[in-house]
Amino acid sequence: MKAVVYKGPNQVAVEEVPDPKIEAPTDVLVRITSSAICGSDLHMYEGRTAASPGIVFGHENMGVVEEVGSGVASIKKGDRVVMPFNIACGFCFNCVRGYTGFCLTANPGFAGSAYGYVAMGPYPGGQAELLRVPFADFNCLKLPGQPGDQWEDDFMMLADIFPTGYHGTELADVRPGSTVAVFGAGPVGLMAAYSALLRGASEVYVVDRVPERLQKAKEIGAIPIDFSKGDPVEQIFDMRRQNAGVTGAMRPGEESMIGVMCGIDAVGYQAFSHGTGSQEQPNQVLEDLIRVVNPTGRIGIPGLYVPTDPGGVDQAAKQGQLLLSFGKMFEKGIRLGTGQTNVKQYNVFLRDLIISGRAKPSFVVSHRVPLEKAPEAYEKFDKRVEGYTKVVLKPQQTAAD
Amino acid sequence: MKAVVYKGPNQVAVEEVPDPKIEAPTDVLVRITSSAICGSDLHMYEGRTAASPGIVFGHENMGVVEEVGSGVASIKKGDRVVMPFNIACGFCFNCVRGYTGFCLTANPGFAGSAYGYVAMGPYPGGQAELLRVPFADFNCLKLPGQPGDQWEDDFMMLADIFPTGYHGTELADVRPGSTVAVFGAGPVGLMAAYSALLRGASEVYVVDRVPERLQKAKEIGAIPIDFSKGDPVEQIFDMRRQNAGVTGAMRPGEESMIGVMCGIDAVGYQAFSHGTGSQEQPNQVLEDLIRVVNPTGRIGIPGLYVPTDPGGVDQAAKQGQLLLSFGKMFEKGIRLGTGQTNVKQYNVFLRDLIISGRAKPSFVVSHRVPLEKAPEAYEKFDKRVEGYTKVVLKPQQTAAD
Amino acid sequence: MKAVVYKGPNQVAVEEVPDPKIEAPTDVLVRITSSAICGSDLHMYEGRTAASPGIVFGHENMGVVEEVGSGVASIKKGDRVVMPFNIACGFCFNCVRGYTGFCLTANPGFAGSAYGYVAMGPYPGGQAELLRVPFADFNCLKLPGQPGDQWEDDFMMLADIFPTGYHGTELADVRPGSTVAVFGAGPVGLMAAYSALLRGASEVYVVDRVPERLQKAKEIGAIPIDFSKGDPVEQIFDMRRQNAGVTGAMRPGEESMIGVMCGIDAVGYQAFSHGTGSQEQPNQVLEDLIRVVNPTGRIGIPGLYVPTDPGGVDQAAKQGQLLLSFGKMFEKGIRLGTGQTNVKQYNVFLRDLIISGRAKPSFVVSHRVPLEKAPEAYEKFDKRVEGYTKVVLKPQQTAAD
Amino acid sequence: MKAVVYKGPNQVAVEEVPDPKIEAPTDVLVRITSSAICGSDLHMYEGRTAASPGIVFGHENMGVVEEVGSGVASIKKGDRVVMPFNIACGFCFNCVRGYTGFCLTANPGFAGSAYGYVAMGPYPGGQAELLRVPFADFNCLKLPGQPGDQWEDDFMMLADIFPTGYHGTELADVRPGSTVAVFGAGPVGLMAAYSALLRGASEVYVVDRVPERLQKAKEIGAIPIDFSKGDPVEQIFDMRRQNAGVTGAMRPGEESMIGVMCGIDAVGYQAFSHGTGSQEQPNQVLEDLIRVVNPTGRIGIPGLYVPTDPGGVDQAAKQGQLLLSFGKMFEKGIRLGTGQTNVKQYNVFLRDLIISGRAKPSFVVSHRVPLEKAPEAYEKFDKRVEGYTKVVLKPQQTAAD
Repeated sequence: MKAVVYKGPNQVAVEEVPDPKIEAPTDVLVRITSSAICGSDLHMYEGRTAASPGIVFGHENMGVVEEVGSGVASIKKGDRVVMPFNIACGFCFNCVRGYTGFCLTANPGFAGSAYGYVAMGPYPGGQAELLRVPFADFNCLKLPGQPGDQWEDDFMMLADIFPTGYHGTELADVRPGSTVAVFGAGPVGLMAAYSALLRGASEVYVVDRVPERLQKAKEIGAIPIDFSKGDPVEQIFDMRRQNAGVTGAMRPGEESMIGVMCGIDAVGYQAFSHGTGSQEQPNQVLEDLIRVVNPTGRIGIPGLYVPTDPGGVDQAAKQGQLLLSFGKMFEKGIRLGTGQTNVKQYNVFLRDLIISGRAKPSFVVSHRVPLEKAPEAYEKFDKRVEGYTKVVLKPQQTAAD
Repeated sequence: MKAVVYKGPNQVAVEEVPDPKIEAPTDVLVRITSSAICGSDLHMYEGRTAASPGIVFGHENMGVVEEVGSGVASIKKGDRVVMPFNIACGFCFNCVRGYTGFCLTANPGFAGSAYGYVAMGPYPGGQAELLRVPFADFNCLKLPGQPGDQWEDDFMMLADIFPTGYHGTELADVRPGSTVAVFGAGPVGLMAAYSALLRGASEVYVVDRVPERLQKAKEIGAIPIDFSKGDPVEQIFDMRRQNAGVTGAMRPGEESMIGVMCGIDAVGYQAFSHGTGSQEQPNQVLEDLIRVVNPTGRIGIPGLYVPTDPGGVDQAAKQGQLLLSFGKMFEKGIRLGTGQTNVKQYNVFLRDLIISGRAKPSFVVSHRVPLEKAPEAYEKFDKRVEGYTKVVLKPQQTAAD
Repeated sequence: MKAVVYKGPNQVAVEEVPDPKIEAPTDVLVRITSSAICGSDLHMYEGRTAASPGIVFGHENMGVVEEVGSGVASIKKGDRVVMPFNIACGFCFNCVRGYTGFCLTANPGFAGSAYGYVAMGPYPGGQAELLRVPFADFNCLKLPGQPGDQWEDDFMMLADIFPTGYHGTELADVRPGSTVAVFGAGPVGLMAAYSALLRGASEVYVVDRVPERLQKAKEIGAIPIDFSKGDPVEQIFDMRRQNAGVTGAMRPGEESMIGVMCGIDAVGYQAFSHGTGSQEQPNQVLEDLIRVVNPTGRIGIPGLYVPTDPGGVDQAAKQGQLLLSFGKMFEKGIRLGTGQTNVKQYNVFLRDLIISGRAKPSFVVSHRVPLEKAPEAYEKFDKRVEGYTKVVLKPQQTAAD
Repeated sequence: MKAVVYKGPNQVAVEEVPDPKIEAPTDVLVRITSSAICGSDLHMYEGRTAASPGIVFGHENMGVVEEVGSGVASIKKGDRVVMPFNIACGFCFNCVRGYTGFCLTANPGFAGSAYGYVAMGPYPGGQAELLRVPFADFNCLKLPGQPGDQWEDDFMMLADIFPTGYHGTELADVRPGSTVAVFGAGPVGLMAAYSALLRGASEVYVVDRVPERLQKAKEIGAIPIDFSKGDPVEQIFDMRRQNAGVTGAMRPGEESMIGVMCGIDAVGYQAFSHGTGSQEQPNQVLEDLIRVVNPTGRIGIPGLYVPTDPGGVDQAAKQGQLLLSFGKMFEKGIRLGTGQTNVKQYNVFLRDLIISGRAKPSFVVSHRVPLEKAPEAYEKFDKRVEGYTKVVLKPQQTAAD
């Protein structure tokens, strides 16, 4: 079959690889209808990880079940399914408690597994025609409708970015009436802002510097903040003061409430400093969050931080270490949550929001291209050119479609 | 009246100061029967804060109500009471949500207030004969019994260290069956370990280097770990492996579970490095916790970190900044909670455990001395000599008692 | 001043009564701008409670502070405020834990207090020109804007029905993606459905028989179910089956999921049986909820049930006893929450949703009338004629306005 | 193999039945070392259910894995395991959310499945030599040690009664410092009291009338209440008043706090009325709980209630309907949780408490007998004679052992 193969920094190719097979009775094979390129694929693509050439990329996968192992109970040939990017067994200590992003079984020796990702186990990705899905009863989410219908790209978002944005709001404890600041308006940031609004947040600020992204944030009801135009924290403080109708001197105590209660980092370790001459500064977003979040507030961090970064800006960054204003964070009593999303905790509920018409996350999708155009799509997405925001590969289409 | 007054680094004196008065209708005055010296008093005592001479120390206070403002509804003259170290109004945005350690009213311009503490508001401390208690209905916890009875020192612990240790277990999400590592076996660390056991933890490791403290940890049912004898994280891993009955090679996944699920930092910014030639290293405990806590685990940080530390070991430390292995923490999906304890959330329940005989936290008290011996007590406690672990001042006793 | 006084079954009058005064240093007096008639006022009005003539009605109150006691810290003359219907001290065992609907202080000998309500303490209601507010720092919620502005009726809803509807969703554990059935489309039922949608529910069914109410439910995005046209539970099952795309035989397990996960009783003890010849049957809604809620689901009950009902349909009902299918409820593992709303837990967040424009609860208000027209308004509201759904009294307007 | 077979009311026999076989790749076979008789087995034994003759009893099962299906990933031949009484798939909507007592897969058409129990699916019980365990990776909890070691009977309690008692404390929200009343001192009631103490409750009252049971309650640190000697609620009120040191008139509010915050029903539908001439009254315990639980408290109901009871005392009881003081419950704002225990949520933590020596639940076991003595054991346990409290069958022992 055809698949997107990593060839080395800034290089992928669509190549013939062996078809996957049922390896255990609990496996199924899925014929892929949609497989999205994720911002975290770009970390590998850019050579900012330990990924070796040969990996088949693709952890956001969706399609139709083609073959079913003899030990699978609930999934049948022909079922339309989407899979969490994490591969989880469903029965280990972590999975049972809901931490399916930290499965102890699927990737022995490490807590957590995924398709087509460095260090996440021996599982080829789904930017291909077929995908083997282990522990299929647990990992397949059944979908109504037909491939290519009006929900295809919405359901596609259930594999990773919609749950991941939502996870940010969960970690940050977003509730009805909450004030929220999301750093990053890429696909995950936009999904976080969208999720915050679905959960009833009263004010959602979204910080980025790309005009198209800020425009999308505005369209869904969030308040865009452009960090290339100055300190985003001060910008939020100013707007909060205005929103609160504080025109003169503030009343006692209010200076502790002009930030937000919930901060979300949808950027991760490749953060940039403020202003026009912006450059990579890995602790920038976290430092901003410590400033912008009010005392007793929370920070949710779905954005990726890594223990080793070959391209880190300094020695500490290469080892995944950051300098943080911990004293200030303690003084504010901030609580902070990190880590990969446990997709399985959320995907069924988010699916039902799509089916009922209350959520339409495909608004982030900018491009749909056949599998063979993957190399071009990677390159443009990586450079953020031509509005490449979120690309979905369509292995069953041809360039001529 | 007599009170303990800060005179400058390493110097306190017992001096005559004006008696406090009812200043608002919601105040009461309390005649102090017990007021403890806290480890955080030593930060001021040692000159490691911005505290100016003249402050009356004492935020752990207990006594009998002597005068009652006209707007107080539930407290009467003669009531025996203990006060949380935090002064809280009970009605601001933070107090109503239970965050009484971050009151927006009591200390205008700052979230949080306390008696006798730098930057925590204009409230004299209770290492004195009398104490003014603002918002008395909210801040006084009524106690049964009589001054000096068998509960006096147990109830004294309700002002700060018992709730603060307990808060660590709350932030770290300690539940029945949890595995716990507490760093620091000072009074707060011991109270954290004690609380973890009260909550049903299955294994509680306590890390320190002072033999008497480690002995106390052992006596209450915890497992002592001496960090002067080597890397405490490796020591815990080894004991966990043994406890788990893992004699040969570990099974897949188990290497992600040989740490603990709950980590508690009861040390704070004046941490020390491992081994025999140990020296101050402010990120040591946090780094150890990131290593020892399993994926999906939590870290609770009742130990104090400050935004400015005049005596910090380097420029970053002076500004309250620490270098943390954030990439590793993210990879493990660890969640972390910080900040001053909201004593009012816990003190009534901990009081009831004392009354029913199920908790006896006074085991940490090493010395009870009259007020006038405070200077000597500070000096010895600061040097950790003669077994000075936890000192309770008794303003109604004289040296001749 | 003028006030609405209960004269006996089906009779209220607007009479001169003495002005309230500051009685304790923690009181304020509020000049009422809006005071709503509540469905629970009708229980008293109809003689279905032990209320004695002479009570000044009105527990949904809002206005401008006119006089401030000497012990009040955060409220000033001229502040625009809305008060929870419950009077709460803020410092008792229940208030501190957030259960402000069960204050142990305000109404000695009983857990819970309110303005102008039988058995809820000696506090006159606010269907009057002035209102005394005890424990004012705790009970007054400050509001931006000016009396009579675009938010006046929205903020009015914060006193009771918006938080009460919201409380139903909290008790029923409504989350993003939840399926919800609300019984009753009166003001509280509509607010519950509205809150469920604010919280991100995927499907919200609303059961009533009054066409105008069902129409309002539909307008906010809920699915109306008319119980006069047949068993509402079967109607919901049918729609759920269709929504789930189940056209043929159901798959295994699905029959346990064709109900909803969250049920809300916004009716209470004056429930009616199904069908056209409907009559009072106090256990009807609860029995329906036990049927319609799926295994592992929850039932939230903001609708009032009383321990003694002089007009109960039988001896058990008179004593507040109901026959319930408890065995079926156990088999399904349903959890159930009851009781008066703790308004203070929610009102600040709901206020912020109004200010940010994300909530506009005044859509339920059908009539705004001067105080002197209260007798007519009570009569029409009680008979549900002329579209009387929710009436707000305006003590500062005259009939000529 | 030999197994305990239900022959009709008050009759079981040990008979030869066919050996179980691996039926699906995800099955294992377990050679039983211990299988306990449960109080709920007696409901079937007494003919108080729809159970037909021929059922092999036994849902509390433990042993050693003998054969392993090809699709099982984590369980190996020779593993020592205990199984939750509920059979759960681990991947359905309910299991994923932790509600493994309401699995939608294992018993098609019903939410919940178990071994050897009427209406809980086609699974023979484990009061036999061998047991087939479906979805083995999910349903087997691995144990250290060897069959017959010092933990054998402790681990046996993990199949049902320890988690079920614990579940009662979870539903009742027992926390450190809580006051608790447990109705019923049978095995589940004792486990509930034991769990409450493990969780740090301050006072635990246990209500029963059997002296031996009350004695056991006392031995573990609970306070025994004998309902044959009078109204147990008044007895608890009296003791609470004394404990609270209330000797004279109570202070305002205290009458709302002389009950307990947490009530647990470990009796179920075969409850008895108070006093000496006690007789079956199915709503007795629930009515007592509504009285004894304070406003804002919670009731946890692990005790079984059934939708149809052939032996019910009246027509309502036969249909599983009870008359409840719902108005009083609403007035108090009580929340209530019901349903079978989701054993898998708790068993790993409770196991770890046993391994660490902090829990020793086998104290409830009164008799250990070979399989062939099951008929005699059932008879004596049913009659509560000769101290038969909790019987564990030992299929690998013979009468001669």
